[in-house]
Amino acid sequence: MLTNLTIALDMMGGDYGPRSSIPAAVSAVNANANLKLILCGNEQVIAKQLESLDSLSHPRLIIRHCNDVVTNACEPAVAIRSKKDSSMRVALDLVKSGEAQACVSSGNTGALFFMAHYVLKMLPGVKRPALISAVPTERKNPVYLLDLGANVHCDAQMLYQFGIMGSVVAGQALGCDNPKVSLLNIGAEDIKGHDEIKQAAQLMQQSDLINYIGYSEGSDIFSGKADVIVCEGFVGNVALKTCEGIAKLIMKKFTRALEKHVVYKCMAFMLAPIIKKLYKRVNPDQYNGASLVGLRGIVVKSHGNASAKAFHAAIDEAVKEVERQLPDKIAAIFEKTHSKDTVANQ
Amino acid sequence: MLTNLTIALDMMGGDYGPRSSIPAAVSAVNANANLKLILCGNEQVIAKQLESLDSLSHPRLIIRHCNDVVTNACEPAVAIRSKKDSSMRVALDLVKSGEAQACVSSGNTGALFFMAHYVLKMLPGVKRPALISAVPTERKNPVYLLDLGANVHCDAQMLYQFGIMGSVVAGQALGCDNPKVSLLNIGAEDIKGHDEIKQAAQLMQQSDLINYIGYSEGSDIFSGKADVIVCEGFVGNVALKTCEGIAKLIMKKFTRALEKHVVYKCMAFMLAPIIKKLYKRVNPDQYNGASLVGLRGIVVKSHGNASAKAFHAAIDEAVKEVERQLPDKIAAIFEKTHSKDTVANQ
Repeated sequence: MLTNLTIALDMMGGDYGPRSSIPAAVSAVNANANLKLILCGNEQVIAKQLESLDSLSHPRLIIRHCNDVVTNACEPAVAIRSKKDSSMRVALDLVKSGEAQACVSSGNTGALFFMAHYVLKMLPGVKRPALISAVPTERKNPVYLLDLGANVHCDAQMLYQFGIMGSVVAGQALGCDNPKVSLLNIGAEDIKGHDEIKQAAQLMQQSDLINYIGYSEGSDIFSGKADVIVCEGFVGNVALKTCEGIAKLIMKKFTRALEKHVVYKCMAFMLAPIIKKLYKRVNPDQYNGASLVGLRGIVVKSHGNASAKAFHAAIDEAVKEVERQLPDKIAAIFEKTHSKDTVANQ
Repeated sequence: MLTNLTIALDMMGGDYGPRSSIPAAVSAVNANANLKLILCGNEQVIAKQLESLDSLSHPRLIIRHCNDVVTNACEPAVAIRSKKDSSMRVALDLVKSGEAQACVSSGNTGALFFMAHYVLKMLPGVKRPALISAVPTERKNPVYLLDLGANVHCDAQMLYQFGIMGSVVAGQALGCDNPKVSLLNIGAEDIKGHDEIKQAAQLMQQSDLINYIGYSEGSDIFSGKADVIVCEGFVGNVALKTCEGIAKLIMKKFTRALEKHVVYKCMAFMLAPIIKKLYKRVNPDQYNGASLVGLRGIVVKSHGNASAKAFHAAIDEAVKEVERQLPDKIAAIFEKTHSKDTVANQ
């Protein structure tokens, strides 16, 4: 365990802003004696909320005042150009300068992605960063799904690189050497899908950096047959949000079905905590956040409507990634690939 | 109600073949006195199964012997070229010749799509047919989702046409004049998504054939905010199969959670029928099948692992589509568009 952990938080993002980020920050430093948090945002608002939680003078909660906020409606290009004193930008700058080892934000995903890309830059050899999250499966271990929306369209090389980065993340998180990597497709047979997927499958098959096990369909995501599932950002985003939608639908329909009968109605009351817990478990993005991989720094994106508990979970995720030194591990693999390519091209 | 309904069934497709298609055919004709079914497949196998159900001499169950079967591994091009006496092809030929008004198959989706396209041809003005299915929502009415995998990639014009066809299907099924049409995207804001989606949104916005309401995200599918949601086949297929997967996961995790406590264990037993019913309801594709729209004939695709009940539901869906005269209604709209375009180009 690292003894000196500093994480920068964008306190002003998401639907609840400081109402969820401040209780999360307080509980996170109280739970981890090695953790120092730099709270980026409006000093007055943060100080007032900290005071209400008797934590204004906490030695490991440092306020960094920022004049601006990146709103959800803000276009990424505008955010980069004119939001230099926003809580999101300052948090990223702190990672860039080395003052913080990671940053967490629940703000505008598109702006965060482009700003992180612009401020932190990519690791050598990486074509594009990707958004990755752990998704629950029928087995004990989750599956790591990427890209979740950072890149709308992806070519074969990008999908292949996502496979490598996903392997590193899953390998570290699950403690295994050869995570099983699969490509999300519309059928399990080789003839299915479009050219980019077929070419990516070939690249993965030929690579000794990836334990490629073939295609997965949407219904296979949760079976646990793969440790990493790769897809383009548009598809991953729709798949993850579809999960969120259907989980909500099932829970609602189930509760409604129970309420129709007196006997079941009493059960509904008793079952409520189980249903709630389950709903959280099948909504991993909402709970643990997603991470940007491929950058020269650690950035964790908490869900836009993250509660204090969910924001705390995203801080914990950032802590784990610092401890696992994810960017260094990914850089090492890409360096190996690069020197191999150079040798192959000589 | 039509008094003379004839539907051709591919008896040999899907995971269970005649084991599910024959009981489905028997129960369908028994439930609808106007319905005649032409059972395409191996005569011996069908006759034996019909006999076991005391229905060999049923006057409205006609066997049409076919020597061949399109397997799941069969490539579409091979199926078209060399499976002319397959149960799938014969069922489609019966629609083409007018002997049957619709056909139902639970066989190889890709082969069925290409063969139907080849045999029946497209309606004038339609660029590509699409696979559509009703998906449950939080409200009373379902939402019609298309394309579900018939076209891997789609350009703006195709997406726009899917919006028109989806409008006709939803309008007829829900009995409303102006179904709300939405495009599936990775965000609700105008700047989100790729060029094809943005262009399709423009086409829909400018059209008086579509009541376009803007973008939906994956999580909105089930909210009931739209009556029709349009996406490219790759995305729709992944979304639908993801629903199937997550529904299975939730049901499993819920049952497992209940089994951990003695009190809940008894409940699990009592709740089993509710859970089963709910699972079926959130798996519409598995239950009612999906339809190919845009062709000069009605083709309903039942799920590959359709039970007898599910195959019966797909036959009922085909009956409804015949009664609603869907291809004629779609043709009429496209004729209107075409004459408009001609006028506009003069």
